[in-house]
Amino acid sequence: MPDTAPAAPWVLHPDRALPADPVTRPVARQILEATRTLPIVSMHGHVDAGLLSRDEPFGDPASLLVVPDHYLVRMLVSQGVPHDALGVPRLDGRPVETDPRAVWRTFAAHWHLFRGTPTRFWMEHVLVDVLGVTERLSAATADAAYDTIAARLAEPGFRPLALLDRFGIETIATTDPASATLADHAALAARGWGERIVPTFRPDAVLHVDRPGWAQDVALLGERAGTTIGSYRDYLRALEARRWAFVDAGARATDHGHLLADTTPMDETDAAAVFAAALRGDVDAAAARAFSAHMLFEMARMSTQDGLVMQLHPGALRDHDPHVLAVRGNDVGYDIPVATEYVRALRPLLTAFGHHPNLRLVLFTLDEDTFSRELAPLAGVYPAVRLGAPWWFLDTPDGMRRFRETVTDTAGFANTTGFVDDTRAFLSIPARHDLARRIDAGYLARLVVEHRLDLDEALETAVDLAYGLPRTAYARPPAGTVERATPAPGSDRQVAGA
Amino acid sequence: MPDTAPAAPWVLHPDRALPADPVTRPVARQILEATRTLPIVSMHGHVDAGLLSRDEPFGDPASLLVVPDHYLVRMLVSQGVPHDALGVPRLDGRPVETDPRAVWRTFAAHWHLFRGTPTRFWMEHVLVDVLGVTERLSAATADAAYDTIAARLAEPGFRPLALLDRFGIETIATTDPASATLADHAALAARGWGERIVPTFRPDAVLHVDRPGWAQDVALLGERAGTTIGSYRDYLRALEARRWAFVDAGARATDHGHLLADTTPMDETDAAAVFAAALRGDVDAAAARAFSAHMLFEMARMSTQDGLVMQLHPGALRDHDPHVLAVRGNDVGYDIPVATEYVRALRPLLTAFGHHPNLRLVLFTLDEDTFSRELAPLAGVYPAVRLGAPWWFLDTPDGMRRFRETVTDTAGFANTTGFVDDTRAFLSIPARHDLARRIDAGYLARLVVEHRLDLDEALETAVDLAYGLPRTAYARPPAGTVERATPAPGSDRQVAGA
Amino acid sequence: MPDTAPAAPWVLHPDRALPADPVTRPVARQILEATRTLPIVSMHGHVDAGLLSRDEPFGDPASLLVVPDHYLVRMLVSQGVPHDALGVPRLDGRPVETDPRAVWRTFAAHWHLFRGTPTRFWMEHVLVDVLGVTERLSAATADAAYDTIAARLAEPGFRPLALLDRFGIETIATTDPASATLADHAALAARGWGERIVPTFRPDAVLHVDRPGWAQDVALLGERAGTTIGSYRDYLRALEARRWAFVDAGARATDHGHLLADTTPMDETDAAAVFAAALRGDVDAAAARAFSAHMLFEMARMSTQDGLVMQLHPGALRDHDPHVLAVRGNDVGYDIPVATEYVRALRPLLTAFGHHPNLRLVLFTLDEDTFSRELAPLAGVYPAVRLGAPWWFLDTPDGMRRFRETVTDTAGFANTTGFVDDTRAFLSIPARHDLARRIDAGYLARLVVEHRLDLDEALETAVDLAYGLPRTAYARPPAGTVERATPAPGSDRQVAGA
Repeated sequence: MPDTAPAAPWVLHPDRALPADPVTRPVARQILEATRTLPIVSMHGHVDAGLLSRDEPFGDPASLLVVPDHYLVRMLVSQGVPHDALGVPRLDGRPVETDPRAVWRTFAAHWHLFRGTPTRFWMEHVLVDVLGVTERLSAATADAAYDTIAARLAEPGFRPLALLDRFGIETIATTDPASATLADHAALAARGWGERIVPTFRPDAVLHVDRPGWAQDVALLGERAGTTIGSYRDYLRALEARRWAFVDAGARATDHGHLLADTTPMDETDAAAVFAAALRGDVDAAAARAFSAHMLFEMARMSTQDGLVMQLHPGALRDHDPHVLAVRGNDVGYDIPVATEYVRALRPLLTAFGHHPNLRLVLFTLDEDTFSRELAPLAGVYPAVRLGAPWWFLDTPDGMRRFRETVTDTAGFANTTGFVDDTRAFLSIPARHDLARRIDAGYLARLVVEHRLDLDEALETAVDLAYGLPRTAYARPPAGTVERATPAPGSDRQVAGA
Repeated sequence: MPDTAPAAPWVLHPDRALPADPVTRPVARQILEATRTLPIVSMHGHVDAGLLSRDEPFGDPASLLVVPDHYLVRMLVSQGVPHDALGVPRLDGRPVETDPRAVWRTFAAHWHLFRGTPTRFWMEHVLVDVLGVTERLSAATADAAYDTIAARLAEPGFRPLALLDRFGIETIATTDPASATLADHAALAARGWGERIVPTFRPDAVLHVDRPGWAQDVALLGERAGTTIGSYRDYLRALEARRWAFVDAGARATDHGHLLADTTPMDETDAAAVFAAALRGDVDAAAARAFSAHMLFEMARMSTQDGLVMQLHPGALRDHDPHVLAVRGNDVGYDIPVATEYVRALRPLLTAFGHHPNLRLVLFTLDEDTFSRELAPLAGVYPAVRLGAPWWFLDTPDGMRRFRETVTDTAGFANTTGFVDDTRAFLSIPARHDLARRIDAGYLARLVVEHRLDLDEALETAVDLAYGLPRTAYARPPAGTVERATPAPGSDRQVAGA
Repeated sequence: MPDTAPAAPWVLHPDRALPADPVTRPVARQILEATRTLPIVSMHGHVDAGLLSRDEPFGDPASLLVVPDHYLVRMLVSQGVPHDALGVPRLDGRPVETDPRAVWRTFAAHWHLFRGTPTRFWMEHVLVDVLGVTERLSAATADAAYDTIAARLAEPGFRPLALLDRFGIETIATTDPASATLADHAALAARGWGERIVPTFRPDAVLHVDRPGWAQDVALLGERAGTTIGSYRDYLRALEARRWAFVDAGARATDHGHLLADTTPMDETDAAAVFAAALRGDVDAAAARAFSAHMLFEMARMSTQDGLVMQLHPGALRDHDPHVLAVRGNDVGYDIPVATEYVRALRPLLTAFGHHPNLRLVLFTLDEDTFSRELAPLAGVYPAVRLGAPWWFLDTPDGMRRFRETVTDTAGFANTTGFVDDTRAFLSIPARHDLARRIDAGYLARLVVEHRLDLDEALETAVDLAYGLPRTAYARPPAGTVERATPAPGSDRQVAGA
């Protein structure tokens, strides 16, 4: 069967992920070419700041590419590969596979499972383009690939900061808890990387009052803010102080993972009562939910004061299987999306701040049913709202295509932020941005060949999506429009515009 | 970059919005051609009857094309253009931009925001094809376009009734409150336009008992019906009388905007009690919702008696931002779709009247998730049900394509009504019907080239969708099947068929 | 209009349902060709076991192809054809059309209604390819087609068992109530068909305690199990015994039709109390719903013991119109899908058994909104979960395409079961599998021409989807892994893996 043999050697096709029909493809190529040399602006990701600050060589292929990638681990688990065989650590310290070559072989032997998935697309890019693997992955080629990768990772040019240059990354945002010391960012800034590597304020741990460990996290928050948190008022002050510390460290944005998008505010006395009860360890789930919603409202209020862009990621039911959670901890593939309501949920926040010149609210979703029904209509009228890139289970070739096909009608392009990669897999950052640019090029090409857009407009829009929009969406407000003085909490809920 | 320059002069491409692949496009062209000379049947729209009756020249370009178009206004607002700058009036009488040329320039300078949106498609058609603008809109070309349009609007051939001929509009339905005098329609009828311009009975204002101004609207309803409404029974009688007045004025249909599709009937005594309480101004939200649902059921019952087609438009959460509502009033872009349930909601109505030969219930949605799951299955079995065209945020090239791709499987073509334009932008009516015909031609062409439909069938279906189906869907019942005598309310809830 | 005339004679195009663009189609053809000679594995259908066991000639064309096909009947009803005219029997014994030729003529005269629907695609395949009809169906050709079909059905080669060979059906599963005698299967096994025709355990009638006739069905269940059911414990024992009887008769799977996917277990005492109340005829809807959910959990537990694959079909609101139900009974086209939640609903079951090596849970849906949001994420991590083929209103060309486009990203191919036809229309089985193979070939071809998959991988995957996956998804567990000894109900709720 000669025509079914894999291409040898393994290469990336220049037209990958572009529409195939002979009218659209050449236009898509031309549009893609307009973005080819643009830098990467990576304003939302989960690369560890310490990794960049230490700037040490990466470890072995398995611990770099397999063990921490929950997209990859979940697929192997779904087909019966135990977490142990993949070297995913256990909280109880019982043994798991520790030989990276064994883990790698297990992954390679199951390469066929990833057919049609974005993991396949990204990993192929990483292996071929970044790491120089030359044969398609399989049980037979596993060892050769392992050796190639390991050798490459040992080269000086493959240390993290060198890769920032190699990848053309102009700016990269990390994600950091509210109680982060920001020491890594300070160290990087001292070496001149402060403009290029910025933190993101992620306060989830201290906003969900029924989280295990919440009280300790609040205590740590106080410590970082140089105070002791004994009351709700202290808590707000500490959050405000920490947000400004992040601003000073270069942060552009906050990030919020909530099950619901609810933003209903509470009266200050009610909020203070829930907070006090939570400190006593005496809070029920309903009160905790209400407090989380209230704090989203407060985060928006604080954004109007300090100008941090507010990113909201609702709709992931975390840790679906409690047994897995108990044995493996979080982030091993068991977060599952649920239907998410935005229109009523965001009404309090948008009524209060949806026209405020200092607020930019970037909405993400795992529920694509909301693209045309809720998200595009909201972004298409409220000046504060922008739509983030398709997230997580939707950051796929067809998911990103459906995003453009459903939101552009009502939100246009300018109400979207362009691509964010949202990844902790550092080596896959170019692959992810490359894929997004290809999908956008294909979508724009379709508009052109259907005579719904002129080619010059498509070229300009492609550059916007790849570069201009993420830069402006995450830009700091103009000088003088935000002020450090802290007004009383809840005192400024008036809408600016309308 | 010569190949990125905009086409000069500005023209509409004959193949716009048709599939681009070289196999499908010629078939789509052939199918489109079969509909090219068909008249427009516009059975659901919001053109003001007074505009047609007065038949005066249109005003300036801005007040015609910009200020009243909430699709357009909402996009500009979303990117920070204040309503004031667009001349959208304030209820408090404070000043807004009154220079139409200034408003037009603001719009023209933001033309790029509409890339990829249906507003772009429709407006391009209006500007180029209807109004003769020859250069692509931009800040630089704004004044020239303004002058071209203004000159064109002053021509006698551009008065409203002349445009009905120019546009090939065979029938146009306006939307009129239950208390409308119908004087404009009477005046038009006196001049021979009675068959061509028909009213639509829209009783929302008197069905939602917690609406501000409800009691006054009910009083006015009584006045129009020549009675005083003191009881629920009077109210039903007045509604029935007004519906017959609309029938006499040529109406084909009623139209109902409800947040929910609920049609649960109440006992007559309960309904009377809610009505009485509402007259006293003493009704809560739950009772008001229940009464709205009940009245949908009653509207269906009345339709079985007077033969008016019943159009239901649920799922728009009106006036999302109360500040904007207070300052600008309704219909300025802040209505946002919400998830909508039809299957359980419509069960009471369909159980009672779903097989009644005099009922035609046309369902619309803003929630495309219901296309394949709920709407097509209901329309594909109940004789009374037809699916209206994709509505509002979904009346877009890709929205209309998704509609056909998801409902045809289960509902076929004959259970849809063909296109309705639903617009208050009179000059855009040809653009909207043209776009719908193009999308349907493209969808049918795909069926043909995939050998799922023969070409002769596709040609016949295209004519049905463009012309035959809207005519039959909104036709009056055969003579003798509806009768003017009014039975006691609620007395005729038996299903006819099954 | 020569180019609009239907093709004469009526033939099936070899490229039907393949993508039309000239780059993709040849690749799709090549992929389809790889599946052309594969046997049909039909692991979920509703062909009557008695029909196969009796192996008598089929009846007339109408009673074979029209009357029992609820897809077809519902479309005709929706356009005003009465059930009576189609010969759909009435429960009250009042007369309906009994002349099969008259029924057939009514169907043929409405052939145009099926344009764009899967009924059209399947029926065309049956009429042309299986039955040798040579002119497109219409009022004019109805009689000739009737005669052709009637003659064909009288041939010995058209008896049911002969058709199994003609159709290349390797295995076919019927659907049988929990109280089935399985006599037809025994008779078939005695004649050597036992491996090829297998039953499926469908206990709905005895799991929904508020169903009319439930108590009698439970009594019959006891009788079949050789016991008297007086308690909840007896009931569980009888269910377990019957499941083993099905295993002994070759069954591979159970099948469960529930309105909700809820799997929340009850305490044994609570379950016993509901059961006892139900036996007394004293159970409310909420208790019945809770018990149905509990029994899904119990069915999963039993599957871990006897190895039957568990198929779950939630989300159909049965018998939407009670008048039709009263007059015509079930399954005449009035089941309507409703929005369905899986993530929270399945959590109890998956937490308990989601990693159990003996459980395979095959999920189906009528709510395609759950494809990317809920079903693919669940199947993409839990080893026990597989996604069934697009079901019922979604088993259409575009529905199946959307299924692949939305679930492959997260679930890949290996977490799907391949196609099941789910049909009671025996003659349409080849048409349905053929269509599924074509859609999968088209989807895989797109991945190839977009350079997202190599051709050899696509060819291998096509064979998996058509043949390998249904075989392995419905395979019995390895010998020795399931055991007949019955532990105490509810005693084994521990998760095996994680």
